[in-house]
Amino acid sequence: MFDPTPILSGDRRALARLLTHIENAETDAPEALAVLFPRTGRAHVIGVTGAPGCGKSSLVNALAKTIRGTGRTVAVIAVDPSSPFTGGALLGDRLRMRDLAGDPGVFIRSMASRGALGGLAEATADMVTALDAAGFEAILIETVGAGQAEVDIASTAHTVLVIEAPGLGDDVQASKAGILEIADVLVVNKADQPNAENTVRALRASLDMASDPEPLEWQTPIVSTVAIDGRGVDDLAAAIRQHRDYLESSGRLLRRERERLHHELTARLRDLLLEKLKARLSDGHFDATVDKMVARELDPWNAARQLARGA
Amino acid sequence: MFDPTPILSGDRRALARLLTHIENAETDAPEALAVLFPRTGRAHVIGVTGAPGCGKSSLVNALAKTIRGTGRTVAVIAVDPSSPFTGGALLGDRLRMRDLAGDPGVFIRSMASRGALGGLAEATADMVTALDAAGFEAILIETVGAGQAEVDIASTAHTVLVIEAPGLGDDVQASKAGILEIADVLVVNKADQPNAENTVRALRASLDMASDPEPLEWQTPIVSTVAIDGRGVDDLAAAIRQHRDYLESSGRLLRRERERLHHELTARLRDLLLEKLKARLSDGHFDATVDKMVARELDPWNAARQLARGA
Repeated sequence: MFDPTPILSGDRRALARLLTHIENAETDAPEALAVLFPRTGRAHVIGVTGAPGCGKSSLVNALAKTIRGTGRTVAVIAVDPSSPFTGGALLGDRLRMRDLAGDPGVFIRSMASRGALGGLAEATADMVTALDAAGFEAILIETVGAGQAEVDIASTAHTVLVIEAPGLGDDVQASKAGILEIADVLVVNKADQPNAENTVRALRASLDMASDPEPLEWQTPIVSTVAIDGRGVDDLAAAIRQHRDYLESSGRLLRRERERLHHELTARLRDLLLEKLKARLSDGHFDATVDKMVARELDPWNAARQLARGA
Repeated sequence: MFDPTPILSGDRRALARLLTHIENAETDAPEALAVLFPRTGRAHVIGVTGAPGCGKSSLVNALAKTIRGTGRTVAVIAVDPSSPFTGGALLGDRLRMRDLAGDPGVFIRSMASRGALGGLAEATADMVTALDAAGFEAILIETVGAGQAEVDIASTAHTVLVIEAPGLGDDVQASKAGILEIADVLVVNKADQPNAENTVRALRASLDMASDPEPLEWQTPIVSTVAIDGRGVDDLAAAIRQHRDYLESSGRLLRRERERLHHELTARLRDLLLEKLKARLSDGHFDATVDKMVARELDPWNAARQLARGA
């Protein structure tokens, strides 16, 4: 039986160990998370996303320092689907740790492993559970890139920051990235660059174009920052706080939490049902079915139906 | 009963209609795909990925023209998780279509909708099935960004191109992106820029650092291109062809196909089992379980176990 006391009382090594078990999908992680789950629900989960080159890591670093400066504890999860061989996550950690190391109110963790499909998103959600139970009041999730990662972050975080930088936005693809829709706060980092005002203006125009079907109770702010010298980071922390207040006062926090847990239950159930079915199938039955698919004797839909009948 | 004849005989409107049904996850799509599936397995599926600003769309356009010029038919799926309001996908289509419109041997499709978790990846795989059955010999999948999208593309495509551009690679994050690992062919686009040689050199160094556990039967080539004037695109098409030959002669094509179908069967089965369980649960049972989770009376793991017991 998993003893939650060390983690609940701030033992960082116990926490780090659990995070490793989560990352490696070890079989004891779910039990530990189940025990910790009742102690969760207090953290403010903040997703941070943006294209490579926008200065995301520096900004997360600066933001963590600023939030910590207000007395709140902060955890950072850097979701980085890089391979171990680039050493990227380790390097990133070192860069970030330089400023924040040694403070027990700060916890930083990189996930370097390239998970299976959906694996990173699930591991991230589990790490949030562990860090929330451990008492971290703000949890920053930093994700690389565009696309599915952003859909995932939007379903895990309460507040989503989308970072842009001048010069990255002048491509058709950048404006296509469609990330404005999930942004609760837009950030133009590297705002000391000469063309930063154009980026702000372009983002403002895109936001104005957005015809939100719901009445706009929350006006997405655009905050300009210079992460490397800390300019604007106080404003950003304030905007994040305002979004949290808005979520609470409007009842949306509860709605987001409900959606998040609905989503999580669905994911767990899907995995569990597959696992139970596989345990019941005879050895080689699954592989034999794949063989028939490879030979084009059976299509994936009927193959799934045949296997599910055994459930 | 779905009649596959129009699609198999080259009716573009029938094909477009099916792709729309796939994108909207309409309930008749699986049956149609099941009927078409035995006619698949001939297309060369090529994934194209890279950060915004690398000129990916222009390169895909140029590559499609070059492949078409060798007499082969080409389809392009642009997986673009942008929202409809930016109009990004439509604009991208228009830019691309200008050169390729009117040729029945070319088919271009954008997916603009932001799917549910895993939704885009599944819809992409289904579109590949439809286009393969329709007889397209090369299928290019263009994805935006880094992260999960690249994991997905690696599991769907036979050959993965990773595009870099000079100046985008000088950030810690760019080298962290970890996309080298999934690249079968590396492309440095915008190779007419003065610092292009540095990018090639940096990529070469990263590749050399990679300690591949398997003996390197395939040496990832680095191809320099200038998509907007077509320079290097012939070399790129040749490298893609060589990779296909390598996959065939080494037996890896069959292995990739087996993994792909294993993966697809798992995904179908997972969805089907969940669907069957939900059909058996009484109204409101699932929601009541989520309510208990919101109240922290029940954790997601035990919640899933309780619901699965009803299966």
